[in-house]
Amino acid sequence: MEEIGFLGLGIMGKAMSMNLLRHGFKVTVWNRTLSRCDELVEHGATVGKSPASVIKKCKYTIAMLSDPAAALSVVFGEDGVLEQIGSGKCYIDMSTVDAETSCKISEAITSKGGSFLEAPVSGSKKPAEDGQLVILAAGEKTLYDAVLPAFDVLGKKSFFLGQVGNGAKMKLVVNMIMGSMMNAFSEGLVLADKSGLDPLALLDVLDLGAIANPMFKMKGPSMIKSTYSPAFPLKHQQKDMRLAIALGDENAVPMPLAAAANEAFKKARSMGFGDLDFSAVHETVASGKSSS
Amino acid sequence: MEEIGFLGLGIMGKAMSMNLLRHGFKVTVWNRTLSRCDELVEHGATVGKSPASVIKKCKYTIAMLSDPAAALSVVFGEDGVLEQIGSGKCYIDMSTVDAETSCKISEAITSKGGSFLEAPVSGSKKPAEDGQLVILAAGEKTLYDAVLPAFDVLGKKSFFLGQVGNGAKMKLVVNMIMGSMMNAFSEGLVLADKSGLDPLALLDVLDLGAIANPMFKMKGPSMIKSTYSPAFPLKHQQKDMRLAIALGDENAVPMPLAAAANEAFKKARSMGFGDLDFSAVHETVASGKSSS
Amino acid sequence: MEEIGFLGLGIMGKAMSMNLLRHGFKVTVWNRTLSRCDELVEHGATVGKSPASVIKKCKYTIAMLSDPAAALSVVFGEDGVLEQIGSGKCYIDMSTVDAETSCKISEAITSKGGSFLEAPVSGSKKPAEDGQLVILAAGEKTLYDAVLPAFDVLGKKSFFLGQVGNGAKMKLVVNMIMGSMMNAFSEGLVLADKSGLDPLALLDVLDLGAIANPMFKMKGPSMIKSTYSPAFPLKHQQKDMRLAIALGDENAVPMPLAAAANEAFKKARSMGFGDLDFSAVHETVASGKSSS
Amino acid sequence: MEEIGFLGLGIMGKAMSMNLLRHGFKVTVWNRTLSRCDELVEHGATVGKSPASVIKKCKYTIAMLSDPAAALSVVFGEDGVLEQIGSGKCYIDMSTVDAETSCKISEAITSKGGSFLEAPVSGSKKPAEDGQLVILAAGEKTLYDAVLPAFDVLGKKSFFLGQVGNGAKMKLVVNMIMGSMMNAFSEGLVLADKSGLDPLALLDVLDLGAIANPMFKMKGPSMIKSTYSPAFPLKHQQKDMRLAIALGDENAVPMPLAAAANEAFKKARSMGFGDLDFSAVHETVASGKSSS
Repeated sequence: MEEIGFLGLGIMGKAMSMNLLRHGFKVTVWNRTLSRCDELVEHGATVGKSPASVIKKCKYTIAMLSDPAAALSVVFGEDGVLEQIGSGKCYIDMSTVDAETSCKISEAITSKGGSFLEAPVSGSKKPAEDGQLVILAAGEKTLYDAVLPAFDVLGKKSFFLGQVGNGAKMKLVVNMIMGSMMNAFSEGLVLADKSGLDPLALLDVLDLGAIANPMFKMKGPSMIKSTYSPAFPLKHQQKDMRLAIALGDENAVPMPLAAAANEAFKKARSMGFGDLDFSAVHETVASGKSSS
Repeated sequence: MEEIGFLGLGIMGKAMSMNLLRHGFKVTVWNRTLSRCDELVEHGATVGKSPASVIKKCKYTIAMLSDPAAALSVVFGEDGVLEQIGSGKCYIDMSTVDAETSCKISEAITSKGGSFLEAPVSGSKKPAEDGQLVILAAGEKTLYDAVLPAFDVLGKKSFFLGQVGNGAKMKLVVNMIMGSMMNAFSEGLVLADKSGLDPLALLDVLDLGAIANPMFKMKGPSMIKSTYSPAFPLKHQQKDMRLAIALGDENAVPMPLAAAANEAFKKARSMGFGDLDFSAVHETVASGKSSS
Repeated sequence: MEEIGFLGLGIMGKAMSMNLLRHGFKVTVWNRTLSRCDELVEHGATVGKSPASVIKKCKYTIAMLSDPAAALSVVFGEDGVLEQIGSGKCYIDMSTVDAETSCKISEAITSKGGSFLEAPVSGSKKPAEDGQLVILAAGEKTLYDAVLPAFDVLGKKSFFLGQVGNGAKMKLVVNMIMGSMMNAFSEGLVLADKSGLDPLALLDVLDLGAIANPMFKMKGPSMIKSTYSPAFPLKHQQKDMRLAIALGDENAVPMPLAAAANEAFKKARSMGFGDLDFSAVHETVASGKSSS
Repeated sequence: MEEIGFLGLGIMGKAMSMNLLRHGFKVTVWNRTLSRCDELVEHGATVGKSPASVIKKCKYTIAMLSDPAAALSVVFGEDGVLEQIGSGKCYIDMSTVDAETSCKISEAITSKGGSFLEAPVSGSKKPAEDGQLVILAAGEKTLYDAVLPAFDVLGKKSFFLGQVGNGAKMKLVVNMIMGSMMNAFSEGLVLADKSGLDPLALLDVLDLGAIANPMFKMKGPSMIKSTYSPAFPLKHQQKDMRLAIALGDENAVPMPLAAAANEAFKKARSMGFGDLDFSAVHETVASGKSSS
């Protein structure tokens, strides 16, 4: 893997491409807003002027885009991936997208002779910076084996899950559970507070029990202070809830908790919190003024 | 603490009194169904013939009963705690009850000159056996200090939370979060399975991420096999959800996830699963036959 | 029925006692805040100085109180109903209370030789004023037959439902359905509005279809204008949801819609809307500022 | 309107085309399974061999198809509407589809010079047979005016709602409210039954109150008997819930009741009830065996 292309420098993409640079990979970056490339260039990255030109230059190109629309546009749009993909070119899409989007991209790329791997990740800003993501790959097994050196830099563990779409699905299932847990946690924090208990004592008690987990430990103290600097934006969490519910719909799986959580995230969006951290769903529980 | 009385030898009480015996305490046990005392006697326990007689014999008596009705009956019933409680006698109720029940017991005991501590625990069968409970005490601080040697045997950590009722409330908040999490986890397991993913792979992925927690790790494999041997009976979990929701009602805290989880536990009860482990709520998601 | 006592002159009680006066009954009224009696006195009512004195004076006494606590206090409190009830005295409690409360009152009254009928009503301010309530009676059938002349004035139809508690239960079931419907209606109104449809056109369409009902027709126009003058206070609706859910809990009936509606009403209480009409739950759906 | 084409002879389409025949319209029918045309032919209909041939023959063609996929296929598929549509040809799609599907069809038809009206209906089998549908039209106002004679036969009232998509949206909002109401009603029926009340008495009480509506009256008695012959198949109701929730998602409208109702319908699908009447969601509440 002499050289890697990297498309998309949002919160996640920036941290990931920086990690690749730090571990000695030559990286060619592209981002729709080009100024986001500057910091990477300072650390040794080259800039590509379009997705197509990155693909042309690199055998392996990783994409980390914000949503299905962006993932599709980078592939199918003008100066997009498809214009240069072909035999010997490998495209690894690490964006969180639905299985349908992933399959559409896979078909387009493989029908032109390219190799495709979907590889969405579990973990947000901090794990991305620390190279501690969990990578959920699916698609061509030989490509998976080839990019393992990069995955070893980006994540603490990677899984190969079979056919294209399975990475996307696994990601959704995990994020769905996480979204419901965040809501349950918020309800508990507010209930403790309004019932005359110290929410910080609740955090201590939780941390000793059967449901202790890193998310409660990391997010709890800032939620108690109503600060929500965005590690994983609420609107993206809500999008994942929606996609997971759609997957459940296809398979007739009743998911009342996920559905209730999704509505709470929508409520938070309607309150203007879509760009804050997903833990801001806490405000939908906490925001009442008085009881009567 | 030369001698300790112990009332209630259900799953939890038996493990806890056994631990006290193992650590050198002299224990006088009582249980409504007396035959449950036999195993304890083999390990050195003495049997009391009623709650009153245990109180009479011991300066400190711990109770671990199944629900508020049982907790009240042992105190206020015939040959109950109240008949012998008085100055110099200490009663520590470790049952999970609502704050109102706890306050009623506290008032009755202190008005007769006795000392009272509520001390519900977080943790079920296994932690009880291993002396790894988390103890949530509230009431008389001096009594709390006096029984710490016993708490050190029963639990890995104890908290003193202030006025009577706060232990009960903290317990409910923790169990409410746990109940919602269990539902969210079930939904994820079924969604993975029905979507063509390996639920065991989901367990691996979860265990590496921000929401990794002992409960998922411990319960997941048996849930996948639809086995639910009762560590924490579902009907008790549902009771705690109900009490937590009632607490939220008093304080006007909207808790849509907890409410949805409570209905799922009720559905499981209506399916006849009240005496199985609370993870049997999984069957409310999984039990469909076919989709159309 | 020469003379009727009437305890409780809230929104409902006032309208009901006025109706009795208008139809020629002699009415002796009592209310905790005595000034609420003035308007009735202008229309010919006599004032009793306590529940006990009303019972002493009248063979038949109707009560219409705001909640279980008030219903119990009027019976069991100082100068309460119990002090004068006895053989030949009849007590008809038309308050909306839970079955347990109703049974407690029934036992107290019948053990003193009095006759008891519970008779909660369906319908709020307007039907009360128009004598168009639906009366759900249960208890002593002979007393039911005796008070039919009064019921004919207060309501358009009365039912005799069997043993004490059944009136309360029927009332709760009806109000539970109503509360869920009100939430479903609110969601529809807001969805129409935010999707670019005219909410008034929605009212017209609804009124022509299979789900046309008086409540949508009556409440819709004011909800669209965000005006909620209290015909049935939200905090009372939420209390009924809570009691209905408790009844479902006893009988292991899963009720996810009612549970979600209850949480929305609690949210409305936490926003300070407890004293507005129950249709103010609309604000929990509508109150977002912007989406992102 | 000398002659009308009619595409799609499911439960609804059959009743509607029969009504048109009965009122003297000349109707040319087409259905994917041609044998469904036989009964119509007996009553005077002509059969078209494809959507294209119906369009070619008739100035006005109405479509009534089961879902968005069918609606799209009839227009865009082989021998589809698009092959013969053009200036002077009018296409009226009365299927229940999402706004996006409706807009896609509208664009295709108008770009070929044809006229388009979407006109989904409110009402199921019985109102369709009785010509008592409510028609929610949007698109070309002149076409709306031209087909009013047919609408007058099919429905008791028609609305013109503006731009294409608004008919679909209005339909979804109405069906969403209906779906939540059906669930609320089911919960009430089961709660009554399990609490010792007569569900038939509940129907009587409901029918006298503020929430009396034709659906409760019509569906209640058969639901109590657990019979669900399909007037409106459950899988179609669930599809509408899903589409309504997607519309709410676009506009950040929190809809916890609709979400809970959707999960109940999904549960019913997973139990194999997708082809029964949507009132079969009752079984998700009622189906428990025993409580513990």
